[in-house]
Parts: sequence; structure tokens; C-alpha cells
Amino acid sequence: MIKILIDCFGGDHSPQAPVEGALAALAKNPDLYLILTGDESLLQTELAGKTYDSSRLEIVHAPEVIGCDEKPTDVIRLKRNSSMMKAIILLRDRDDIAALVSTGSTGALVTGALVRLGRIPGVIRPAFCPLLPTMDGGIVGICDSGANPEATAVHLRQFAIMASLYLENVYGVKQPRTALLNVGREPEKGDDIRREAYRLLQETPSVHFVGNMESRDLLSGAYDLVVADGFSGNVLVKTTEGTAIELLKKLKKDIYSRTLYKLGALLMKKMFLEEKEFMNYQNYGGSVLLGTDKVVVKGHGSSKAVAVEKCIEQAFRMETSRLSAKIEAEIARYEHYEDS
Amino acid sequence: MIKILIDCFGGDHSPQAPVEGALAALAKNPDLYLILTGDESLLQTELAGKTYDSSRLEIVHAPEVIGCDEKPTDVIRLKRNSSMMKAIILLRDRDDIAALVSTGSTGALVTGALVRLGRIPGVIRPAFCPLLPTMDGGIVGICDSGANPEATAVHLRQFAIMASLYLENVYGVKQPRTALLNVGREPEKGDDIRREAYRLLQETPSVHFVGNMESRDLLSGAYDLVVADGFSGNVLVKTTEGTAIELLKKLKKDIYSRTLYKLGALLMKKMFLEEKEFMNYQNYGGSVLLGTDKVVVKGHGSSKAVAVEKCIEQAFRMETSRLSAKIEAEIARYEHYEDS
Repeated sequence: MIKILIDCFGGDHSPQAPVEGALAALAKNPDLYLILTGDESLLQTELAGKTYDSSRLEIVHAPEVIGCDEKPTDVIRLKRNSSMMKAIILLRDRDDIAALVSTGSTGALVTGALVRLGRIPGVIRPAFCPLLPTMDGGIVGICDSGANPEATAVHLRQFAIMASLYLENVYGVKQPRTALLNVGREPEKGDDIRREAYRLLQETPSVHFVGNMESRDLLSGAYDLVVADGFSGNVLVKTTEGTAIELLKKLKKDIYSRTLYKLGALLMKKMFLEEKEFMNYQNYGGSVLLGTDKVVVKGHGSSKAVAVEKCIEQAFRMETSRLSAKIEAEIARYEHYEDS
Repeated sequence: MIKILIDCFGGDHSPQAPVEGALAALAKNPDLYLILTGDESLLQTELAGKTYDSSRLEIVHAPEVIGCDEKPTDVIRLKRNSSMMKAIILLRDRDDIAALVSTGSTGALVTGALVRLGRIPGVIRPAFCPLLPTMDGGIVGICDSGANPEATAVHLRQFAIMASLYLENVYGVKQPRTALLNVGREPEKGDDIRREAYRLLQETPSVHFVGNMESRDLLSGAYDLVVADGFSGNVLVKTTEGTAIELLKKLKKDIYSRTLYKLGALLMKKMFLEEKEFMNYQNYGGSVLLGTDKVVVKGHGSSKAVAVEKCIEQAFRMETSRLSAKIEAEIARYEHYEDS
């Protein structure tokens, strides 16, 4: 039995989406045990009338909610009774709990996890790794997408090792083709950190390093994993999402501007729905935090039930594939860099 | 009469696109005088049979061409007879020449310009500022998009001052709404450089600073200018272009997959052509280098004649609006930071 905490508040569709996602995951997976954190009476109301195996569902009362504009450092100090902080503390203190899924504030979650949880031995900096769909129907991971604003070459190498193992063990991507985000493809491009990271990655047998990647090629399908400092990785992920969303919005607006276009779009309705579904990040799971000693999965703030369910599946697979132990073993091969 | 150099080689459609773009600009603007650099006989062949005012067109023979995989530092030392380096030297040495337009290697151009040209007094680092279309029909400038991989807070402030003046003087954008690229909107987001830049920008009356911008909002129309270090600025611009291109490619492929969709798309043909045109960077001019004492405009490597013509117009307007003098005056207001 794998026990996973679900932070049921702080997302746009809380507590409805986390609760429904939890029940869906529970129904499908008999080896799953879920602990919901949040206001108990609100959670009971949400659960009322629903069918589920109550022997595998537990509620931990945590009445406070974290607003998205609260300062993360204040939150971890002052909001110990929030659904998120309570979950992080439980995750730290109870050996029987494997993972946490949250759709709440990213800042609070990363700060809370980094301050309160341990790291996998050897890992210097935990890092976020979300997934995006590529145009050939595959996926591409981006690590780090924002857990740390800065990164050294050694950090970047660790991100590559951790995220390669994640893609291989959780998504079955064999030898993920791993690139370094840079301003050009040539080895000498970018700043000193990038040039040093390029050299280190070439000397890392655990990583299938294919060189620098220019950001315009992210979705091409030529890469399985892109390694970046958290600042530019964040720009990479959010620009991709933002551009896709804005373009779809524009397309929709333009279609509605003329009857002829509406008619044409009617014939293409199925295709447009498929495009929308293709670009819907809800289908690609959450952003996992790699490097903490317990599994943490961050779902989009706007996650609906299906997205929460995917996050729970991810957390389950991360735990059952023994990803942490594999990361520890692989990082240990390069431990002379550990103190950098 | 404004004299502008056109580097006629190194682009994907050279020398045809630069030459045709030059002739189109020449025909429209009687105050323009153009100097084409490149292999003279090839340029004469391209010009043969075309009608133009030969009293305002000059050729400077420069037979070498720079490949896109050549190292910029080697190029400026070894390829003095290339169409690009010859143009940079002429720009530096001849007081009567105001500007240079090139569609050749970005790396060689920026290195050549930074090493061979002077800077506007007070400017610490010249920076690139390309433009992208926003979803409400406007434009947004991004500065720096890659001239320098790193930037300090003072550099970022200078980018904001220079690019604001550029948008105001060349595009008529009054008080450009200027944002700092960051991983979140709150003032405390990002690294120390970002927090310091936020503070400096708030204290800069010449800049209409509206706070941090998350990259997903770039195309929303809420901003006229985004200031970034050259690394993340490069990621921002290229990810936007890359995502738009990949999505359009996917749409096209999907449309061709079924007859029904092809029929629907036929009804929407005009709209799709408009979307394509809207997203075609050829319509938005080149990326200008701000801060050098002579005007440098970098057109996309794949620029066709119409894009080259736009670059020439940009260079012309930068010169006639006396942008350099305005930048110098504005930067001087903050000159106590000059030596940072």
C-alpha cells in the first residue's frame, strides 16, 4: 500500500477537483491509500454521497488556506495549520507516507519542501521537472523550471541525472535525449556556466547528452529532456504555454468574427477539440520536484479532477519505481562534485 | 540624405533578398542612399535589368562570406573582406554613413559591432531589441534578446531607458509600458539582480515601469516593452517564435489528414492566411542593436526582400529621429551608475 497526501486547498478548483481526483485514483488503484488535508467539514461535505473505499481514505484536519499572494517564508512559519504545510510536516514525520500532491501556491510548496523535507543524499538542489507535449506526439521534460533561480554547472548536471532517471523510470523513455538550454547550438555559446555544464554533461555517462538546444526547438520532438537554470527554464515553460494559449484564443476570436469561418470551423470541430486537448496541460501531469527525499508533485493551480488524478498516478509511479534510490546511486558516482 | 550600408551576403536568401529589399526602399524614400557590400560581380548580376536611381546606390566589393558556423571572434580577425566586416569597418570609419542592415550571422554581427564600433556615451552594454506582435494588434519589444548573456541591474535599467526611447521615437508608442521579465509578478521574485533591477526601475522617471512580467503574458497586449538579461530574453523570443511555428505546422498537418478538415479550411482560407501573416516575423522588422554609436539592424537570417526593406526603414527612422542623442541625454541623468 502506497500512502499519498493530497493537499485539498489552494488550487482554483479546491476542494472539488482534488477530492474528485483522489476518489478516481483510489477507485482505479487498489494499492493506493490517500490522506486528504484541509478543513474537515468542507471535505466531508465534498465526500458526502460519493462511493469510495473508506478504509483507504483518511482526512487530516487543517483549516487554514494559503493565498497565492502570501509570502512563502511567512507561510511556512505562520501557517502550520494550512492544508499544505500540515501535509509537508506529515510527509516529513511519518515514515509510512510516501508522497504529497498539491495544486496550491508553487512558491509556498517549494519553500516548504526545501526547508522542511530532507534531500536525497548527494543532491545539492532539488529541481522542478514539468512535461510538455511535443509535436510528434511525445513529451519533453524541462528541469529546472523554477525551484532555484540560479544554477551552477554542477547543479545542471545533477538536474540532468535526476530528470533522465525520472523520464526513464516513470515514463519508460529509454536513454532520454538530453539537451542544455542555450542561446545557440555550438558548444562555446552562452556564459561560463553553460560552457562548463556542456563539458560536464559530455563527461557524464548516465546522461545521454545531445548538446545545446535553442529554445525554438523545444517542441520539435528532437529532445526528451532539457536542462536549464530555474529562471530560464521557467521562461521556457511559461512562454510555451502562454504562446499556445494566446494563439488558440486569437484563432477562436477570429473564427467568431465571420459566419463563413464559423461554418468552416464546424466542419473541423473534432480537429479543434483534439488540438485543444493536445495543448491542455491537464493531460500531462504535474511538475515533480526531484531531489527531495520524499516525492512531491505540484499540479497546475487550475487543475481539474483529471489533472489531480494524473498527479497522483505520477507520485505513485515515482514511489513504486524506487526513483529516489536510483537517483542516490547515480549521483554518488559523481560525488566528488557534491560540495561544489 | 541618409546613407545606410546593406550587408548583402550571409542570409538565407542572399544576395537576392537584400538587393531587392534595398531597391524597394530606395524607390520609396528619396532621402535614402544605400551602399551594398558583397561580391561586386554577383551584386551587378543581381542588379542587372532592374530600374533604380543609380546616383543613390553604391557597391563596395567584399568577396568573402561568413558561414553561420564560424566563430565570431575568428571572423572579425580573419574575415575583414567579408560583406559584413567590411560594412562594420566602413560604418566605423566614414562619418557620412549612418547605419548598417545585415541578415548574416547574429554572433558575428554582435561581436563585430561591439568590438569595432563605439558606444553611445554612458551606455555600458549595447543590447538587442526585436519586436513581436501582440494579440491585440500591437507590438512588444524585448530588450536584451541576446547581445549579452548576463546583465546586472544597472544594465537592465539602461536597456529599459534605451528601448523605451526606441519604441517612442521609432514606433510612436507613448510612454511604453515597461516590465521586467521575472518568474512571478511580486517585487521579491527572482534572484538578487532582478530584485535590485525592480528597485532601480521604480526610481527611473524616464521609464514607465509597470512591474514584473511572467513570460506567459508576453503576447497579451498588456506590455509594450520587456526588459531581460540576454539569456532569458533570447529564450523568451525564440520560444514564442518556435511555439507559434510548431503549432501552425501541426494545424496544417492535421488539416491535411482528412478531406472534411480540408473542406473546412478552404472556407477559412482567408483567415488562415491572415493568421500566418500575423505571425510572420518578416512583417515586424529586424532586431535593432541599441547603444552603439551608429545604428545596426539585424534582420532574420531567413529574411525575404520585404523584411530587408522593413529593416532599412527602421534604420532610417532611428537615424532621423536622432535616437542616439536622446539615449545619450537620458542615460546621462543616471550617470553615477555608469561605472558599475
